[in-house]
Order: sequence, then structure tokens, then C-alpha cells
Amino acid sequence: MSDDRIITLTTDFGLKDPFVGEMKGAVLTIHRPAILVDITHEITSHDIREGAFVIGSSYRYFPSGTIHVAVVDPGVGSERRPIIVEADGHCFVGPDNGIFSFPLSLFPDARVFHSTEERYMLAQESPTFQGRDIFAPVAAWLAKGTKVEELGPRINDPEVFSLPLPRIEGETVTGEVISIDKFGNAITTITKNDLSSFGDRYSAALNGTPVSPLKYYGEARDRNLHCLINSSGYLELFVALGSAAALFSIKRGDRVVVRPG
Amino acid sequence: MSDDRIITLTTDFGLKDPFVGEMKGAVLTIHRPAILVDITHEITSHDIREGAFVIGSSYRYFPSGTIHVAVVDPGVGSERRPIIVEADGHCFVGPDNGIFSFPLSLFPDARVFHSTEERYMLAQESPTFQGRDIFAPVAAWLAKGTKVEELGPRINDPEVFSLPLPRIEGETVTGEVISIDKFGNAITTITKNDLSSFGDRYSAALNGTPVSPLKYYGEARDRNLHCLINSSGYLELFVALGSAAALFSIKRGDRVVVRPG
Amino acid sequence: MSDDRIITLTTDFGLKDPFVGEMKGAVLTIHRPAILVDITHEITSHDIREGAFVIGSSYRYFPSGTIHVAVVDPGVGSERRPIIVEADGHCFVGPDNGIFSFPLSLFPDARVFHSTEERYMLAQESPTFQGRDIFAPVAAWLAKGTKVEELGPRINDPEVFSLPLPRIEGETVTGEVISIDKFGNAITTITKNDLSSFGDRYSAALNGTPVSPLKYYGEARDRNLHCLINSSGYLELFVALGSAAALFSIKRGDRVVVRPG
Repeated sequence: MSDDRIITLTTDFGLKDPFVGEMKGAVLTIHRPAILVDITHEITSHDIREGAFVIGSSYRYFPSGTIHVAVVDPGVGSERRPIIVEADGHCFVGPDNGIFSFPLSLFPDARVFHSTEERYMLAQESPTFQGRDIFAPVAAWLAKGTKVEELGPRINDPEVFSLPLPRIEGETVTGEVISIDKFGNAITTITKNDLSSFGDRYSAALNGTPVSPLKYYGEARDRNLHCLINSSGYLELFVALGSAAALFSIKRGDRVVVRPG
Repeated sequence: MSDDRIITLTTDFGLKDPFVGEMKGAVLTIHRPAILVDITHEITSHDIREGAFVIGSSYRYFPSGTIHVAVVDPGVGSERRPIIVEADGHCFVGPDNGIFSFPLSLFPDARVFHSTEERYMLAQESPTFQGRDIFAPVAAWLAKGTKVEELGPRINDPEVFSLPLPRIEGETVTGEVISIDKFGNAITTITKNDLSSFGDRYSAALNGTPVSPLKYYGEARDRNLHCLINSSGYLELFVALGSAAALFSIKRGDRVVVRPG
Repeated sequence: MSDDRIITLTTDFGLKDPFVGEMKGAVLTIHRPAILVDITHEITSHDIREGAFVIGSSYRYFPSGTIHVAVVDPGVGSERRPIIVEADGHCFVGPDNGIFSFPLSLFPDARVFHSTEERYMLAQESPTFQGRDIFAPVAAWLAKGTKVEELGPRINDPEVFSLPLPRIEGETVTGEVISIDKFGNAITTITKNDLSSFGDRYSAALNGTPVSPLKYYGEARDRNLHCLINSSGYLELFVALGSAAALFSIKRGDRVVVRPG
């Protein structure tokens, strides 16, 4: 494994405070050649499910061998374990609170370790900032070549919440809005695969509003609600050059129904 | 050309979603030694002219050989071409929608290529996120040493909008506010060169309000509207320790008139 | 000293404008192997004391030899000197306006230099953006191995403001809120050391509201105001899964009183 491994960071820490900078300082103190990449630090505060969705869909755009630190952790300091997950050729470091539910559910051969060895953590460890004092140092030691087995014992009972998968009944697929992006587009839990039997001919509805499918944003010639398969393979609702969420009062959890034809 | 070429990123993607992180993953998957630098991801959504102004004035603070990816792209997925521009010793990668109007207008010897070779793009290319699936990979291959000629054919008709140049009539220079910065300072289209014949003695007006010129912010001893030549060579309106935009209701497009004396 | 020295950046420039990107371009033009890390660019505009507190507590999470650029500089362009501070094995570059008051107060053997040598600055230096034109280049030259003595003369009268230390009278410790973080937690000027004689048994009050101490956030089982020693060693007020600042109308400068028992 080469020296310059990539370490990504996904948190709800925001960019106003020095939290993220201090995590990077902790990494670079241990392993200078690491390549640090921010995925996002604007996960909604304490929203583990949103964090799980983001890291669960973004990690695959990085090369295998990448180490992904994800910290959305309302239980910081409690008995909740720090864990390391190896799955799909990637490594995930963070709290054992369900944030790695996607790789843990999708890869049954995932290996999970409880990070217990204190010599791989910051000496003056604080109970309130384990992102800097535990997760960042553990990622740095892994990047430096420490074997995951040296960090703590293997475990078999990580916290996993059930993925928000769509319900398929006959020819009807029912999912929900799982995330609203910066442009006001609403990403749903329905994937390209769920609709594969429909070909290009399907119709959708959100809270009773009909939603017509298109291939890309620029095709929309009106201000109606449209949908497309987005760049991560999910069904996404949008309005041409506007915020679908604002114009149609869409919020997370709203139900979306898709039928053929 | 050394391995560690710089790739800058300028987009309207924001930092809330994982878009920028995924673009960086796409780059690093292809070329690990690239040095990634964010210029900004807070261009106003879909505002190509603002993006053009930012990349057109910021690129020159990077060493020659730098590759600048700029994506403000309301037409993503349409027939609009992905292009590569070589100008002033720098390389620009993005949509053919006018975002590179500054280097294209200012450097008549600029060379433009239509990026068509799919082996230099992500295999699972999506029509909605070409920043990750086309522009980032193309930049990475260029950083890795691929010749621009291998990426697609040369073209001669890139989209260029007319630069918002000030109007000079007799001794009167009329420009407009092109950008409001984080401090509420209002940057105009009028440059140092446009005022060079006036020396230090000129007076300005915005919507009828007189604006007196100073050398630097700290010289202002009141809460009136002042102006100076800013760090990029543009005439900028400001208020001491306050937001000129908020206090004087300045918005983009407002007319600014400068006269000698 | 190795080539890949770390340069951190702390400013009030925000991330909307290309200011931070241009500073990084200036650094990389001079010294490509520098490792750039953002601490934060969201210091409240012109708030030197907040900037001083952030860099004064964050720098120590970086390895010694790190160069910290900090720019919160309402007096940019005035006679205010650009300085370099060497303290605690770290190097600090920025304006002489008190922003380095923490290392200057805490390390009496700190050495301070006035950066005067123009060959280590950008040629087209602007009076309004010394972050890009002076501080970033100076940091880059230091990272490249230039001796601090070559950058300008040593000085003995840097601007230092008195640190906001808590008042200790008998068994009562009185401090104030110095910062509100992204989660709405209120960080005070009172440190772990100030409370060391109390052991774990103390009680606090903010504006008459009693505040009960805990070890970590997750211990709070109600929506009352609690406090703990945070990850930087400061007493911090919080509410479980909520914003203490919003719920209890806490603002910077509010008085906090701690007593034993």
C-alpha cells in the first residue's frame, strides 16, 4: 500500500469552528503524506441517517484503499464504540451508531473492528471531540500502514439500521424523499434498478402532484415538477432553474409513488 | 511537466452536498499526485456571468500550467459541448456556455478543444453531473500528461459573451457593479486602466450618491461611501467596517459613473 | 526541515469569494510542496479577538514547525506592520494587531520579526489584500526554507491585548462566554485549570440560571443548561441535542460564575 492514501471526512461539524482543521492537524501529525479530502461538513446536526446516506453513496467515487472518516455522533463520549469497517475495498472509521449502515448492509462480508488500543489515539483524549482525538488518529495510523487487527478486536454486532428501501407492490414502487440538495432538488430512495422493468415509460406522483420523467435538467421547458435518474442512480425530483423543494413544499420523508406507463 | 500539477475548482455546487468531494474523488482516482485547490463553490446558482468573472480574474494567481475546472452549467446534459481552453499558459476545463469568456476574449491566440473522447470520462457517465463524470476526469488526465489533442478535435466557435466593459465617453467612464463580496463591498467593471488618465484625482457616483476615492479601507474615517482600486485592479465601493451593499442598497447591475477631478 | 511543511489558514474572508483560493495560488506559486490546511474562514468579520482565540487554541493540534497564517485585519493597508512570530515551536504570520496575543502572552521567549523585505512579497502588491500579497508569500518562503531573519528586522513591541482571563476571588471563578460554536454550545474563558481545586464537584450559573456539570454531552437527560470541560480544556455550556445559545439567549460576553460544591 503506498504512502499517500486518501482520507475523506464527512461530518456535521460545519466550517465556522476549527473542528475540521484540528482533525486534519491530528492526521498530519501522525502521517504527513495522507491526502485529505472533505466530502461535506454540513450534514444536518446529529442526523445520522443523512450522514449514512451521504457516505454510503459517495465513497465509491474514491479509489479502493481510501479511508473514510464519518462523524455524526450525538452520543459522543458515551459507551458507544468507535469502529472500523472494511467493506468493498474501502475502510470506514467512525462511531458505532448506524452511520455505516449502507456498506454494512450491502456487503455481507464486511469486517468490523472495535477500536480500543489507546496508543493509536491522542494522549489527552477528550470525551467530547472524538473526531479529533480518536477517529482522525485511527485513520492516520491506518494510512501509515498499521494493520486493522492491531487497533482492536473484531466484532460481529455493529449497529445497523434498516435501509430506507422502497416498497414494491405489483407494478407500484413507493419510496420517500431522503435528501434535499443545494439546488432544492429532492432525492428519493427509489433507484434506477427499482424502475428497470418500466424502461423509460413511467409516471410519478408526490403528494398527489403528477411528476413527469425526463433525461436531464435542461429538457424541462416549464416550471412543473419533473424527475430524472440522477448521477448517483436515484430518482430525483426537480424544477427547471428553480427549487423544487421550495416551490412544491417538499420535505424529507415525503412519499413518492411511481407506476409504469 | 511535473506530476504535481494544480487543479482548481470553481462551481455553484455549494459545500452542503457531496458534489465537490465526489469530483475530487474522480480526479484522485485517475491521478493521485494532483494538487486540488478550491477557488469557490458559492457562485450564485446558474449564474454563468458571475462564474466567468471569478475564474477570469482569479486564475492568474496560480502558476502557469495550472488546470482550472469551472462548472456553472444550467444546460448540463444538453447538446452543449464540454471544452478545454488553453490561454495565457493556463488550461481551462468546463462547459461551452461562456464561462471562459474572459480568457477567450483577452487572448486571441487561445486554443479550444471539444472534449469528445469517452475513454477520458467516467464509464458510468450520468447526464446530470458532468462536473464529476466529464470535467474532473478530463482535468485529471491532462494533469497526468495526456495531450489536449488526444481529448478531442480543435474547434473555433466557442461560446463567448461580450465582456461587461465600461463605456468611455469624453472624460466620463460609466461601468456597473458586477459582484458583491462577503464584506458587502461592491466590485465594479471599471478597472485601474480605465482611470489611468485621471491620476489619483477623480470622483465617482452611484445612483446619484457621491463616492470619494481613497487608497485603502482603513483611511475611511466616516460611514460614507468610498471607493478604491481593489486587489484585482477593479474599482470597488466600500464603507468603513460596514456593508456598502446593505447600507446603500447596492445590487449587481447598478451604474457607476467616474469623472476626473 | 523537510519540504512539505504545513501552512494553516485562519481568516474572516468567508468561502463565497475567491480570496482564499487566491492566497493558496500565491503560496503554491512559490512553494509547490506546501501542505495547505484551512482552520476556518468564518471568523466574524473584523473580529480580531475571536480570530486570536481560534488560532491561539487550534495551533497546538498541528506538528511543530507548522506555519500559521491568520488574517483578520480591519486596518489592512495602514501603517500596521506585517509580522512573523516564532513561539512554542510554531510560526505565525499575519498583521500586528493583537491576533497573536495568545502565543505572545503565553511564551515569553517568543521572537517577533517585522516582515519588510519586498522581494518576499507579490510584485504587484495591493494595499487591500495583504493576505494574498504579503502573508501568503511570506509563509511560502518560510516553508521553502528562508530564514526568518532574512524577512525583516526583529522587533520587541508587537501589539498584544490582555487575554480574557477569568477572575478568581476566594472560591468564586468568574469568566465570560468567548465564543458560540455551530451547535449553539457556548465556550467560556474558564479553563480546566481554573477549576482544578474543585475536583468534579462544582456548580455554575449564567445570568442567574443554574448550570449543572456533566462529563459529556450524552449524559444530559433533560433540556436544562449543562456544562462540561470541552475538548480544548474550556468550560462549555450546552443543552442536549439543542442550541444552548438559542434556548437560553446566550451571547458573547455573558458572565459565567462557578463555585465549588
